[in-house]
Amino acid sequence: MATVLIREAAEGDCGAIMKMIRELAEFEKLLDQVKISEGALKTDGFGENPFFHCLVAEVPSELSNPLGQGIGSKLIKKVAEVALENGCSQFRLAVLDWNQSAMDFYKARGAKDLTLAEGWRFFRFDTEAMRELVKK
Amino acid sequence: MATVLIREAAEGDCGAIMKMIRELAEFEKLLDQVKISEGALKTDGFGENPFFHCLVAEVPSELSNPLGQGIGSKLIKKVAEVALENGCSQFRLAVLDWNQSAMDFYKARGAKDLTLAEGWRFFRFDTEAMRELVKK
Repeated sequence: MATVLIREAAEGDCGAIMKMIRELAEFEKLLDQVKISEGALKTDGFGENPFFHCLVAEVPSELSNPLGQGIGSKLIKKVAEVALENGCSQFRLAVLDWNQSAMDFYKARGAKDLTLAEGWRFFRFDTEAMRELVKK
Repeated sequence: MATVLIREAAEGDCGAIMKMIRELAEFEKLLDQVKISEGALKTDGFGENPFFHCLVAEVPSELSNPLGQGIGSKLIKKVAEVALENGCSQFRLAVLDWNQSAMDFYKARGAKDLTLAEGWRFFRFDTEAMRELVKK
């Protein structure tokens, strides 16, 4: 039976990853914040000392509809496996507060909302703010 | 004149870094969440493919009081410099919502509260939750 395969991303996946980054940002109504290009993804993720690691789900072409295959559950489980293998004591995510289905998905799998529970907030210096900062 | 030097951390700084991690966690009332040891800091930060990078401020022994030397400003400026040099488009921080002086410090230097502005929340799977997840 055709089944979804979760594997480490390769350099050749960067085009598809870039497409998904843009689709997610569009859903999040934050498309203007996507600054990275496919080329930068390759440099950052597949050089000698990578800035990120990435898993991809490979969906067999026989599956006409990738929905309902449990891809999200498989991906999140694999992230936990990799994290434990590498000695990580926690696995963190960032979620938008109006994305109820994502929050429900993570909570149902045992994640805790740290912003609600402990008061953690995200702060960001964007590129312009960083440039101002170094001038001071 | 004696002045504070900001430099990259070395393996030999891990004892002092560990002490500061514990002091910060104590201030944050989250000391029970510190799971890392000095040994793990060395392995994670100073191996072939480090999990983190770290800057330290070296305070000359002639300075009897390290407060008021602008150490925080110097550190944050250096982080922005390193980030820009490495092609980062943003620099993110996590702050507890009752830590008003930290939030004021970051805001005064151009950082934006993304939890307030866009609704970002932190979610976390702890070790136990990750172990449960991989069993499923």
